[in-house]
Amino acid sequence: MALSYPQSLNDLIRELSRLPGVGAKSAQRMAFHLLGCKKGEAEALAEAISAARARIHACPECGNYTDGELCAVCTDNSRDRSLLCVIESARDIASMERSRSYNGLYHVLGGVISPMDGVTPDKLNIAPLMRRIETGAVREVVMATNPDVEGETTALYLAKKIKPYGVRVSRIAHGLPVGGDLEYADEATLSLALNGRKEL
Amino acid sequence: MALSYPQSLNDLIRELSRLPGVGAKSAQRMAFHLLGCKKGEAEALAEAISAARARIHACPECGNYTDGELCAVCTDNSRDRSLLCVIESARDIASMERSRSYNGLYHVLGGVISPMDGVTPDKLNIAPLMRRIETGAVREVVMATNPDVEGETTALYLAKKIKPYGVRVSRIAHGLPVGGDLEYADEATLSLALNGRKEL
Repeated sequence: MALSYPQSLNDLIRELSRLPGVGAKSAQRMAFHLLGCKKGEAEALAEAISAARARIHACPECGNYTDGELCAVCTDNSRDRSLLCVIESARDIASMERSRSYNGLYHVLGGVISPMDGVTPDKLNIAPLMRRIETGAVREVVMATNPDVEGETTALYLAKKIKPYGVRVSRIAHGLPVGGDLEYADEATLSLALNGRKEL
Repeated sequence: MALSYPQSLNDLIRELSRLPGVGAKSAQRMAFHLLGCKKGEAEALAEAISAARARIHACPECGNYTDGELCAVCTDNSRDRSLLCVIESARDIASMERSRSYNGLYHVLGGVISPMDGVTPDKLNIAPLMRRIETGAVREVVMATNPDVEGETTALYLAKKIKPYGVRVSRIAHGLPVGGDLEYADEATLSLALNGRKEL
Protein backbone atom coordinates (compact mmCIF):
# COMPACT_ATOMS: atom_id res chain seq x y z
CA MET A 1 0.00 0.00 0.00
CA ALA A 2 3.04 2.28 0.19
CA LEU A 3 2.57 5.15 -2.24
CA SER A 4 4.91 5.36 -5.20
CA TYR A 5 5.46 8.96 -6.21
CA PRO A 6 5.95 9.70 -9.90
CA GLN A 7 9.62 9.28 -10.85
CA SER A 8 10.19 12.98 -11.53
CA LEU A 9 8.77 13.87 -8.10
CA ASN A 10 11.15 11.39 -6.43
CA ASP A 11 14.02 12.92 -8.41
CA LEU A 12 13.05 16.41 -7.28
CA ILE A 13 12.82 15.38 -3.60
CA ARG A 14 16.22 13.66 -3.80
CA GLU A 15 17.91 16.68 -5.39
CA LEU A 16 16.33 19.11 -2.91
CA SER A 17 17.48 17.02 0.06
CA ARG A 18 21.10 17.54 -1.04
CA LEU A 19 20.81 21.23 -0.08
CA PRO A 20 22.43 22.12 3.26
CA GLY A 21 20.02 21.92 6.19
CA VAL A 22 17.30 20.17 4.18
CA GLY A 23 16.12 16.77 5.39
CA ALA A 24 13.72 14.31 3.76
CA LYS A 25 10.59 15.93 5.20
CA SER A 26 11.58 19.50 4.23
CA ALA A 27 12.57 18.33 0.76
CA GLN A 28 9.14 16.76 0.35
CA ARG A 29 7.47 19.94 1.51
CA MET A 30 9.56 22.04 -0.89
CA ALA A 31 8.81 19.66 -3.77
CA PHE A 32 5.05 19.91 -3.18
CA HIS A 33 5.41 23.68 -2.94
CA LEU A 34 7.22 23.72 -6.29
CA LEU A 35 4.48 21.58 -7.86
CA GLY A 36 1.71 23.70 -6.39
CA CYS A 37 3.05 27.20 -6.93
CA LYS A 38 2.69 29.26 -10.09
CA LYS A 39 4.62 27.67 -12.97
CA GLY A 40 6.66 30.86 -13.38
CA GLU A 41 7.90 30.69 -9.79
CA ALA A 42 9.26 27.14 -10.16
CA GLU A 43 10.81 28.00 -13.52
CA ALA A 44 12.38 31.14 -12.03
CA LEU A 45 14.17 29.02 -9.41
CA ALA A 46 15.38 26.49 -12.00
CA GLU A 47 16.62 29.30 -14.22
CA ALA A 48 18.24 31.16 -11.32
CA ILE A 49 20.27 28.05 -10.47
CA SER A 50 21.37 27.52 -14.09
CA ALA A 51 22.07 31.22 -14.61
CA ALA A 52 24.11 31.50 -11.41
CA ARG A 53 26.23 28.50 -12.36
CA ALA A 54 26.64 29.72 -15.95
CA ARG A 55 27.45 33.36 -15.16
CA ILE A 56 29.20 33.36 -11.80
CA HIS A 57 32.87 32.44 -11.68
CA ALA A 58 35.82 33.15 -9.41
CA CYS A 59 37.43 36.59 -9.76
CA PRO A 60 40.84 35.87 -11.39
CA GLU A 61 42.45 38.38 -9.01
CA CYS A 62 41.06 37.38 -5.58
CA GLY A 63 38.76 34.38 -6.01
CA ASN A 64 35.55 36.20 -4.97
CA TYR A 65 32.32 35.29 -6.82
CA THR A 66 31.67 37.56 -9.77
CA ASP A 67 29.72 37.65 -13.01
CA GLY A 68 31.99 40.29 -14.54
CA GLU A 69 35.70 40.19 -15.42
CA LEU A 70 36.93 41.25 -11.96
CA CYS A 71 34.77 41.21 -8.81
CA ALA A 72 32.99 44.14 -7.15
CA VAL A 73 35.72 44.45 -4.49
CA CYS A 74 38.71 44.38 -6.89
CA THR A 75 37.13 47.00 -9.19
CA ASP A 76 36.22 49.34 -6.31
CA ASN A 77 38.76 52.18 -6.48
CA SER A 78 37.83 53.51 -3.03
CA ARG A 79 39.40 50.47 -1.35
CA ASP A 80 42.87 50.29 0.19
CA ARG A 81 44.83 48.22 -2.33
CA SER A 82 47.83 47.80 0.01
CA LEU A 83 45.75 45.76 2.47
CA LEU A 84 44.99 42.10 1.74
CA CYS A 85 42.66 39.86 3.75
CA VAL A 86 43.15 36.09 3.37
CA ILE A 87 39.95 34.03 3.85
CA GLU A 88 39.10 30.38 3.40
CA SER A 89 36.17 30.68 1.01
CA ALA A 90 34.41 33.32 -1.07
CA ARG A 91 31.34 33.22 1.17
CA ASP A 92 33.44 34.60 4.05
CA ILE A 93 33.73 37.90 2.16
CA ALA A 94 30.05 38.62 2.85
CA SER A 95 30.66 38.13 6.61
CA MET A 96 33.72 40.39 6.54
CA GLU A 97 31.87 43.11 4.65
CA ARG A 98 28.97 43.06 7.09
CA SER A 99 31.40 43.98 9.89
CA ARG A 100 32.02 47.32 8.07
CA SER A 101 35.54 47.32 9.55
CA TYR A 102 37.59 46.38 6.54
CA ASN A 103 38.34 48.40 3.42
CA GLY A 104 41.09 46.44 1.72
CA LEU A 105 41.14 43.67 -0.87
CA TYR A 106 40.65 39.92 -0.38
CA HIS A 107 42.35 36.69 -1.28
CA VAL A 108 40.34 33.46 -1.24
CA LEU A 109 42.45 30.41 -0.31
CA GLY A 110 39.85 27.85 -1.31
CA GLY A 111 40.30 25.92 1.94
CA VAL A 112 42.82 25.44 4.76
CA ILE A 113 45.85 23.23 5.22
CA SER A 114 44.57 19.93 6.59
CA PRO A 115 46.86 16.92 6.03
CA MET A 116 44.20 14.63 7.58
CA ASP A 117 41.86 15.50 4.68
CA GLY A 118 44.68 15.43 2.13
CA VAL A 119 44.74 19.21 1.78
CA THR A 120 48.39 20.17 1.44
CA PRO A 121 49.55 23.77 0.75
CA ASP A 122 49.91 23.08 -3.00
CA LYS A 123 46.14 22.37 -3.20
CA LEU A 124 45.32 25.93 -2.07
CA ASN A 125 45.51 29.27 -3.93
CA ILE A 126 48.83 30.11 -2.28
CA ALA A 127 50.92 30.59 -5.46
CA PRO A 128 48.59 33.37 -6.75
CA LEU A 129 48.75 34.97 -3.27
CA MET A 130 52.56 34.97 -3.37
CA ARG A 131 52.48 36.56 -6.84
CA ARG A 132 50.28 39.37 -5.49
CA ILE A 133 52.77 39.93 -2.68
CA GLU A 134 55.76 39.84 -5.05
CA THR A 135 54.35 42.88 -6.92
CA GLY A 136 55.28 44.92 -3.84
CA ALA A 137 51.88 46.65 -3.75
CA VAL A 138 50.82 44.91 -0.54
CA ARG A 139 51.74 46.51 2.80
CA GLU A 140 49.81 44.23 5.17
CA VAL A 141 48.15 40.82 4.99
CA VAL A 142 45.31 40.12 7.45
CA MET A 143 44.83 36.41 8.14
CA ALA A 144 41.09 35.80 8.55
CA THR A 145 40.98 32.01 8.36
CA ASN A 146 38.60 30.39 10.86
CA PRO A 147 39.79 30.28 14.51
CA ASP A 148 40.24 26.51 14.58
CA VAL A 149 43.32 24.25 14.41
CA GLU A 150 43.50 24.17 10.60
CA GLY A 151 42.84 27.90 10.31
CA GLU A 152 45.59 28.75 12.82
CA THR A 153 48.04 26.37 11.13
CA THR A 154 47.34 27.90 7.75
CA ALA A 155 47.73 31.44 9.13
CA LEU A 156 51.10 30.58 10.71
CA TYR A 157 52.27 28.78 7.56
CA LEU A 158 51.44 31.77 5.37
CA ALA A 159 52.92 34.28 7.86
CA LYS A 160 56.25 32.44 7.63
CA LYS A 161 56.14 32.53 3.83
CA ILE A 162 55.09 36.18 3.53
CA LYS A 163 57.24 37.86 6.21
CA PRO A 164 60.54 37.56 4.23
CA TYR A 165 59.02 40.01 1.71
CA GLY A 166 58.94 42.69 4.41
CA VAL A 167 55.15 42.64 4.49
CA ARG A 168 53.31 42.99 7.80
CA VAL A 169 51.22 39.91 8.60
CA SER A 170 48.40 40.15 11.16
CA ARG A 171 45.79 37.78 12.51
CA ILE A 172 42.22 38.78 13.37
CA ALA A 173 41.84 38.76 17.16
CA HIS A 174 40.28 35.93 19.11
CA GLY A 175 37.18 38.00 19.63
CA LEU A 176 35.46 35.20 17.75
CA PRO A 177 34.55 32.23 19.92
CA VAL A 178 37.31 29.64 19.40
CA GLY A 179 36.14 26.64 17.38
CA GLY A 180 33.45 28.78 15.74
CA ASP A 181 32.82 29.49 12.11
CA LEU A 182 33.23 32.82 10.29
CA GLU A 183 29.98 32.34 8.46
CA TYR A 184 27.94 32.51 11.67
CA ALA A 185 29.83 35.30 13.44
CA ASP A 186 27.80 38.40 14.23
CA GLU A 187 28.91 41.77 12.92
CA ALA A 188 29.99 43.17 16.31
CA THR A 189 32.23 40.21 17.14
CA LEU A 190 33.80 40.29 13.69
CA SER A 191 34.35 44.02 14.03
CA LEU A 192 36.15 43.54 17.39
CA ALA A 193 38.21 40.75 15.88
CA LEU A 194 39.33 42.98 13.03
CA ASN A 195 40.19 45.95 15.23
CA GLY A 196 42.12 43.80 17.72
CA ARG A 197 44.25 42.00 15.11
CA LYS A 198 47.84 41.34 16.21
CA GLU A 199 51.12 40.78 14.39
CA LEU A 200 52.26 37.20 13.83
CA MET B 1 31.51 49.18 2.06
CA ALA B 2 28.44 46.92 1.88
CA LEU B 3 29.18 44.06 -0.47
CA SER B 4 27.18 43.87 -3.66
CA TYR B 5 26.68 40.27 -4.76
CA PRO B 6 26.64 39.58 -8.50
CA GLN B 7 23.09 40.02 -9.86
CA SER B 8 22.62 36.33 -10.64
CA LEU B 9 23.62 35.41 -7.08
CA ASN B 10 21.06 37.87 -5.69
CA ASP B 11 18.44 36.37 -8.01
CA LEU B 12 19.27 32.87 -6.82
CA ILE B 13 19.06 33.86 -3.13
CA ARG B 14 15.71 35.60 -3.73
CA GLU B 15 14.21 32.59 -5.53
CA LEU B 16 15.49 30.11 -2.90
CA SER B 17 13.99 32.19 -0.08
CA ARG B 18 10.52 31.68 -1.61
CA LEU B 19 10.70 27.97 -0.66
CA PRO B 20 8.70 27.04 2.45
CA GLY B 21 10.73 27.20 5.67
CA VAL B 22 13.67 28.96 4.01
CA GLY B 23 14.69 32.37 5.39
CA ALA B 24 17.25 34.85 4.08
CA LYS B 25 20.18 33.20 5.87
CA SER B 26 19.34 29.64 4.76
CA ALA B 27 18.76 30.85 1.20
CA GLN B 28 22.22 32.44 1.23
CA ARG B 29 23.74 29.21 2.54
CA MET B 30 21.97 27.16 -0.12
CA ALA B 31 23.05 29.58 -2.86
CA PHE B 32 26.70 29.32 -1.82
CA HIS B 33 26.32 25.54 -1.67
CA LEU B 34 24.92 25.54 -5.21
CA LEU B 35 27.83 27.70 -6.41
CA GLY B 36 30.41 25.57 -4.64
CA CYS B 37 29.15 22.05 -5.39
CA LYS B 38 29.89 20.02 -8.52
CA LYS B 39 28.32 21.66 -11.57
CA GLY B 40 26.35 18.47 -12.26
CA GLU B 41 24.68 18.61 -8.86
CA ALA B 42 23.37 22.17 -9.34
CA GLU B 43 22.23 21.35 -12.87
CA ALA B 44 20.50 18.19 -11.62
CA LEU B 45 18.42 20.28 -9.21
CA ALA B 46 17.52 22.85 -11.89
CA GLU B 47 16.55 20.06 -14.28
CA ALA B 48 14.60 18.16 -11.62
CA ILE B 49 12.49 21.28 -10.98
CA SER B 50 11.82 21.83 -14.68
CA ALA B 51 11.18 18.14 -15.35
CA ALA B 52 8.79 17.82 -12.42
CA ARG B 53 6.79 20.83 -13.58
CA ALA B 54 6.80 19.64 -17.19
CA ARG B 55 5.90 15.98 -16.54
CA ILE B 56 3.77 15.95 -13.42
CA HIS B 57 0.11 16.85 -13.73
CA ALA B 58 -3.09 16.11 -11.84
CA CYS B 59 -4.61 12.66 -12.39
CA PRO B 60 -7.82 13.34 -14.41
CA GLU B 61 -9.66 10.79 -12.25
CA CYS B 62 -8.70 11.78 -8.69
CA GLY B 63 -6.39 14.83 -8.82
CA ASN B 64 -3.32 13.03 -7.40
CA TYR B 65 0.09 13.97 -8.85
CA THR B 66 1.12 11.72 -11.74
CA ASP B 67 3.44 11.67 -14.72
CA GLY B 68 1.38 9.01 -16.52
CA GLU B 69 -2.20 9.11 -17.82
CA LEU B 70 -3.80 8.01 -14.54
CA CYS B 71 -2.04 8.05 -11.15
CA ALA B 72 -0.43 5.12 -9.32
CA VAL B 73 -3.43 4.78 -7.00
CA CYS B 74 -6.12 4.83 -9.72
CA THR B 75 -4.26 2.24 -11.83
CA ASP B 76 -3.67 -0.11 -8.88
CA ASN B 77 -6.14 -2.99 -9.36
CA SER B 78 -5.56 -4.33 -5.83
CA ARG B 79 -7.37 -1.32 -4.33
CA ASP B 80 -11.00 -1.19 -3.19
CA ARG B 81 -12.70 0.89 -5.91
CA SER B 82 -15.92 1.25 -3.92
CA LEU B 83 -14.18 3.30 -1.23
CA LEU B 84 -13.38 6.97 -1.88
CA CYS B 85 -11.33 9.23 0.38
CA VAL B 86 -11.83 13.00 -0.01
CA ILE B 87 -8.74 15.08 0.86
CA GLU B 88 -7.88 18.76 0.52
CA SER B 89 -4.69 18.50 -1.51
CA ALA B 90 -2.67 15.90 -3.40
CA ARG B 91 0.12 16.01 -0.83
CA ASP B 92 -2.28 14.58 1.79
CA ILE B 93 -2.30 11.31 -0.15
CA ALA B 94 1.27 10.61 0.97
CA SER B 95 0.24 11.08 4.64
CA MET B 96 -2.77 8.79 4.21
CA GLU B 97 -0.68 6.10 2.52
CA ARG B 98 1.94 6.16 5.27
CA SER B 99 -0.78 5.21 7.78
CA ARG B 100 -1.16 1.87 5.89
CA SER B 101 -4.82 1.81 6.97
CA TYR B 102 -6.53 2.75 3.73
CA ASN B 103 -6.88 0.75 0.55
CA GLY B 104 -9.46 2.68 -1.46
CA LEU B 105 -9.24 5.47 -4.02
CA TYR B 106 -8.86 9.21 -3.47
CA HIS B 107 -10.47 12.43 -4.55
CA VAL B 108 -8.54 15.69 -4.25
CA LEU B 109 -10.79 18.70 -3.56
CA GLY B 110 -8.12 21.31 -4.23
CA GLY B 111 -8.97 23.21 -1.05
CA VAL B 112 -11.81 23.62 1.46
CA ILE B 113 -14.91 25.80 1.57
CA SER B 114 -13.85 29.11 3.10
CA PRO B 115 -16.08 32.10 2.31
CA MET B 116 -13.64 34.40 4.17
CA ASP B 117 -10.96 33.58 1.55
CA GLY B 118 -13.45 33.64 -1.32
CA VAL B 119 -13.43 29.84 -1.68
CA THR B 120 -17.03 28.86 -2.46
CA PRO B 121 -18.04 25.23 -3.29
CA ASP B 122 -17.98 25.94 -7.06
CA LYS B 123 -14.21 26.72 -6.81
CA LEU B 124 -13.48 23.15 -5.61
CA ASN B 125 -13.42 19.83 -7.51
CA ILE B 126 -16.90 18.92 -6.25
CA ALA B 127 -18.60 18.44 -9.64
CA PRO B 128 -16.10 15.69 -10.66
CA LEU B 129 -16.64 14.07 -7.24
CA MET B 130 -20.40 14.02 -7.76
CA ARG B 131 -19.91 12.46 -11.22
CA ARG B 132 -17.85 9.66 -9.63
CA ILE B 133 -20.65 9.06 -7.12
CA GLU B 134 -23.34 9.12 -9.83
CA THR B 135 -21.69 6.13 -11.53
CA GLY B 136 -22.92 4.05 -8.57
CA ALA B 137 -19.54 2.37 -8.11
CA VAL B 138 -18.87 4.11 -4.77
CA ARG B 139 -20.13 2.45 -1.59
CA GLU B 140 -18.54 4.74 1.00
CA VAL B 141 -16.91 8.18 1.00
CA VAL B 142 -14.39 8.90 3.78
CA MET B 143 -14.03 12.62 4.53
CA ALA B 144 -10.38 13.28 5.37
CA THR B 145 -10.32 17.07 5.22
CA ASN B 146 -8.25 18.69 7.97
CA PRO B 147 -9.85 18.77 11.46
CA ASP B 148 -10.36 22.54 11.50
CA VAL B 149 -13.41 24.76 10.98
CA GLU B 150 -13.17 24.85 7.18
CA GLY B 151 -12.43 21.13 6.97
CA GLU B 152 -15.45 20.24 9.14
CA THR B 153 -17.71 22.59 7.20
CA THR B 154 -16.61 21.09 3.90
CA ALA B 155 -17.11 17.53 5.21
CA LEU B 156 -20.64 18.33 6.40
CA TYR B 157 -21.48 20.15 3.17
CA LEU B 158 -20.35 17.20 1.05
CA ALA B 159 -22.06 14.65 3.34
CA LYS B 160 -25.38 16.45 2.76
CA LYS B 161 -24.82 16.37 -1.01
CA ILE B 162 -23.69 12.74 -1.20
CA LYS B 163 -26.11 10.99 1.21
CA PRO B 164 -29.16 11.27 -1.13
CA TYR B 165 -27.33 8.86 -3.47
CA GLY B 166 -27.52 6.17 -0.79
CA VAL B 167 -23.75 6.27 -0.29
CA ARG B 168 -22.31 5.90 3.21
CA VAL B 169 -20.38 9.03 4.25
CA SER B 170 -17.87 8.80 7.11
CA ARG B 171 -15.46 11.21 8.78
CA ILE B 172 -11.99 10.24 10.02
CA ALA B 173 -12.05 10.24 13.83
CA HIS B 174 -10.74 13.08 15.96
CA GLY B 175 -7.69 11.05 16.82
CA LEU B 176 -5.80 13.88 15.19
CA PRO B 177 -5.21 16.87 17.45
CA VAL B 178 -7.92 19.42 16.63
CA GLY B 179 -6.57 22.44 14.76
CA GLY B 180 -3.68 20.36 13.43
CA ASP B 181 -2.65 19.68 9.87
CA LEU B 182 -2.82 16.35 7.99
CA GLU B 183 0.63 16.89 6.56
CA TYR B 184 2.29 16.71 9.99
CA ALA B 185 0.26 13.89 11.51
CA ASP B 186 2.25 10.81 12.53
CA GLU B 187 1.34 7.43 11.07
CA ALA B 188 -0.07 5.99 14.32
CA THR B 189 -2.46 8.92 14.90
CA LEU B 190 -3.64 8.83 11.29
CA SER B 191 -4.15 5.10 11.55
CA LEU B 192 -6.33 5.52 14.69
CA ALA B 193 -8.25 8.28 13.00
CA LEU B 194 -9.01 6.07 9.99
CA ASN B 195 -10.07 3.06 12.06
CA GLY B 196 -12.29 5.18 14.35
CA ARG B 197 -14.16 6.96 11.52
CA LYS B 198 -17.86 7.55 12.22
CA GLU B 199 -20.91 8.08 10.03
CA LEU B 200 -22.02 11.67 9.37
